[in-house]
Amino acid sequence: MANIYDYAYDLEKAIRKSDEYENLRKAFKEVMADPSSRKMFEDFRRFQADLQLKQMQGEEISEEELVNAQKRFEVIRQHKLISELMAMEDRMNVVMEDISRIVSKPLDEVYQELTNGT
Amino acid sequence: MANIYDYAYDLEKAIRKSDEYENLRKAFKEVMADPSSRKMFEDFRRFQADLQLKQMQGEEISEEELVNAQKRFEVIRQHKLISELMAMEDRMNVVMEDISRIVSKPLDEVYQELTNGT
Repeated sequence: MANIYDYAYDLEKAIRKSDEYENLRKAFKEVMADPSSRKMFEDFRRFQADLQLKQMQGEEISEEELVNAQKRFEVIRQHKLISELMAMEDRMNVVMEDISRIVSKPLDEVYQELTNGT
Repeated sequence: MANIYDYAYDLEKAIRKSDEYENLRKAFKEVMADPSSRKMFEDFRRFQADLQLKQMQGEEISEEELVNAQKRFEVIRQHKLISELMAMEDRMNVVMEDISRIVSKPLDEVYQELTNGT
């Protein structure tokens, strides 16, 4: 039992030491250090979160909202600091998703029998 | 990079070797081995999943559905094999949630600045 937690803390430390993590932190700090970039990033995140919530709740996204989202995304992609931050986020997310898949595999296997119907 | 994955696989192995995991597997196999228990468990899981989906989509749960859910839960709690399985699931879930919290802490810390507004 204590064993599992030891391994989890080791993994946590490895994440902190990884290039992906260090690069993400650096990119994030740079955006936060520049007030106009920061505001732009925060606004975009809020907009994204609102849209995501709507989708999760099964609300329909209007054509206008979609076009608006597309436009906002294009603008943000032109922004050097923010687009760098988002690229670093993508890389870190790949690693975190891989970890999540690896760690949840034992549990998935237990329940496989249910979905297989065997 | 390879480093992170090594640690993740070590953690996966530790999960497989844990008492929580072994007990869950055993309890699950016992329910699956008994056709009537299995059917009862599957029906309950499906019912739970439907209810959860409704809640996530912001649909209102009627009084009748709530009473029905409560009743089903009481019946299932009386079932020896299934209630044992559910107890083992709860214990495993505590461990998995702890792991998830530990492993996502580095990332949470990066974004703390955003929510703190500092």
